[in-house]
Amino acid sequence: MKITTPTLLLDKQKAIRNIRRMADKARQNGVRLRPHFKTHQSAQVGEWFREFGVEAITVSSVRMANYFANHGWNDIMVAFPANVLEIEMINELASRIKLHLIAVNQETIELLAQQLRHPVQLSLKIDTGYRRTGILATNYAELDQMVQKIREQDKMHFSGFVVHDGHTYKQNDVYAIQTIYNTSVYQLHMLRERYKSKFPNLQLSIGDTPSCSIIETLRGVDEIRPGNFVFYDLTQQRIGSCSFDDIAVCMACPVVAKHPERSEIILYGGSVHFSKDVILQEDASEAYGRVVELSGSGWSAPLEGIEVVSLSQEHGVVKATPEQFKKYQIGDLMGVLPVHSCLTANLMQGYLTTEGERLEHLMGVPPQELVS
Amino acid sequence: MKITTPTLLLDKQKAIRNIRRMADKARQNGVRLRPHFKTHQSAQVGEWFREFGVEAITVSSVRMANYFANHGWNDIMVAFPANVLEIEMINELASRIKLHLIAVNQETIELLAQQLRHPVQLSLKIDTGYRRTGILATNYAELDQMVQKIREQDKMHFSGFVVHDGHTYKQNDVYAIQTIYNTSVYQLHMLRERYKSKFPNLQLSIGDTPSCSIIETLRGVDEIRPGNFVFYDLTQQRIGSCSFDDIAVCMACPVVAKHPERSEIILYGGSVHFSKDVILQEDASEAYGRVVELSGSGWSAPLEGIEVVSLSQEHGVVKATPEQFKKYQIGDLMGVLPVHSCLTANLMQGYLTTEGERLEHLMGVPPQELVS
Repeated sequence: MKITTPTLLLDKQKAIRNIRRMADKARQNGVRLRPHFKTHQSAQVGEWFREFGVEAITVSSVRMANYFANHGWNDIMVAFPANVLEIEMINELASRIKLHLIAVNQETIELLAQQLRHPVQLSLKIDTGYRRTGILATNYAELDQMVQKIREQDKMHFSGFVVHDGHTYKQNDVYAIQTIYNTSVYQLHMLRERYKSKFPNLQLSIGDTPSCSIIETLRGVDEIRPGNFVFYDLTQQRIGSCSFDDIAVCMACPVVAKHPERSEIILYGGSVHFSKDVILQEDASEAYGRVVELSGSGWSAPLEGIEVVSLSQEHGVVKATPEQFKKYQIGDLMGVLPVHSCLTANLMQGYLTTEGERLEHLMGVPPQELVS
Repeated sequence: MKITTPTLLLDKQKAIRNIRRMADKARQNGVRLRPHFKTHQSAQVGEWFREFGVEAITVSSVRMANYFANHGWNDIMVAFPANVLEIEMINELASRIKLHLIAVNQETIELLAQQLRHPVQLSLKIDTGYRRTGILATNYAELDQMVQKIREQDKMHFSGFVVHDGHTYKQNDVYAIQTIYNTSVYQLHMLRERYKSKFPNLQLSIGDTPSCSIIETLRGVDEIRPGNFVFYDLTQQRIGSCSFDDIAVCMACPVVAKHPERSEIILYGGSVHFSKDVILQEDASEAYGRVVELSGSGWSAPLEGIEVVSLSQEHGVVKATPEQFKKYQIGDLMGVLPVHSCLTANLMQGYLTTEGERLEHLMGVPPQELVS
């Protein structure tokens, strides 16, 4: 297939290897893998998880839940504070799949109680340190009231506690990540103890790709919900979650200009393709992408002396050593590993596998086809 | 129309007022307004320009040119270094509209010379200071060769010189922007002098919204190509291109959580909706969006003591004074002015006007409908 515009390549074998590694780890640790599908948002990529026994998934929006429900998934957690304004679609989904919602406050539980027409699983989101959202694990007054409120409702089944330790993304030290994980597990156990007499089957669920990738022994939880691991990216490599060779997606961008006087190459590929995420490298320089050599069947490790140093809406600026500079000609394709694969995939709206197959992404699916 | 998920509101009256102001300025200065449509990427918004006499437009990709060609525009400049890999669609477009391409190097001219089957207008992109791409205005050796090469081709009509002074985006001083403009015009005039004996009708075209908004007397050029001005945004307000009241788009985001202990509100609205652009405010604080009060017919000026302080994939974190904090409840909609309207519109894939009309955006149009 001839590539003429910025295209997101997907190495299916690497993605499947990433899925297998995480599924093996989950099985060995006796935890359920409920992968987050917000990274790939693709019905076809979703299918690859089935052969590893995955039956339950995580998504980040009701719309995404609807998309995957329409593709045969019937145990879906929307890992985002329940948005009561979407009650109509929530009810529609709850009527046909096992739908899990997340609450972070009493108001939402009350609004759901008034408006739910079909039963849902409800978990409480606990903030164990990230401080984005969730109830503090020590806020017993609020937790007790929320749990009591759920207990009174016949349309809500209290299923347990979920955590997303997003602060692992700021680390690049295995001990820091282990400490974050241990802290969360400790806090979750305290909560389970508190409520287990009334709810003997409470589930504990954690979510971030760094913890799930880096920590070998995932003790103390029932479920893990990583998402990014299916593709990984430069951010995860920097954290230590993966090697460069595990990164399963790569942008192919046409070379449209060369500036020998400053050894810069201009790509067709900008912030509308990559997103604007940036990575701070070990030497404190910033990169918007690392350049790799494309081959017929995939791509190389990142090259030294050449990287994406800035992005505007459609342009990418690549700085190169004179040696790297002279290798590229106008009309060539340059391979670039993305800083944040979730956002790049969200913008690119589809994939081209290294085997030549086109795969869809929710953002490229017309709205009318999303309605079941 | 009931809003249940993050939605990009568009105040049609403000957008039309912005278009009118720019069209009036162009007419008073005797320059052609060739607006850049990459900001709105909408067939319907494009129609609003017609009543102001706009017949020629600018786009940033061949795909976008095709979209607007299919909606009746037949004089289109692709203001991006010509991507020779897309020669097939370039030829198809050149067969049915007046297509303008941009060259920044000899290689592209040679590749086009070999492959063009229909005539195109070709402009040379000049770098007058931004240093992203373009030929330096003093690089006569290269310019002479390029001009000579174009002259030898019957499928290329040399139409003139284009500049995009993207470095105005780093300024917030009218004199700095005036100096950038004057420098560009001076360099463009030198070039026109050099080649006018052989090409008596060369056109000079400049492009950025800050110059076109801030400078009252646009002397010395034939054409202006601003784009962002149709909507404006917080970045342009900070530069001085517009007032807050000129910003014609606003996100409406559901409130999903409140954290009184740190006076933070969580919105359904993250980097997949806004993009990750950030603005450095006068007090050196960073903002990812400014909060406004939504009314039935539009929105207020930005509120003090409340703003979007961080974004993750689907979450927006709003920091508020206790006074502002208590005004918002779970399930409310919060209005947020975007930092960069082009990228927000590109992600949102469509608009809801304050009059209740849904408008399309190229990114929300299924690929098969783009084929003419």
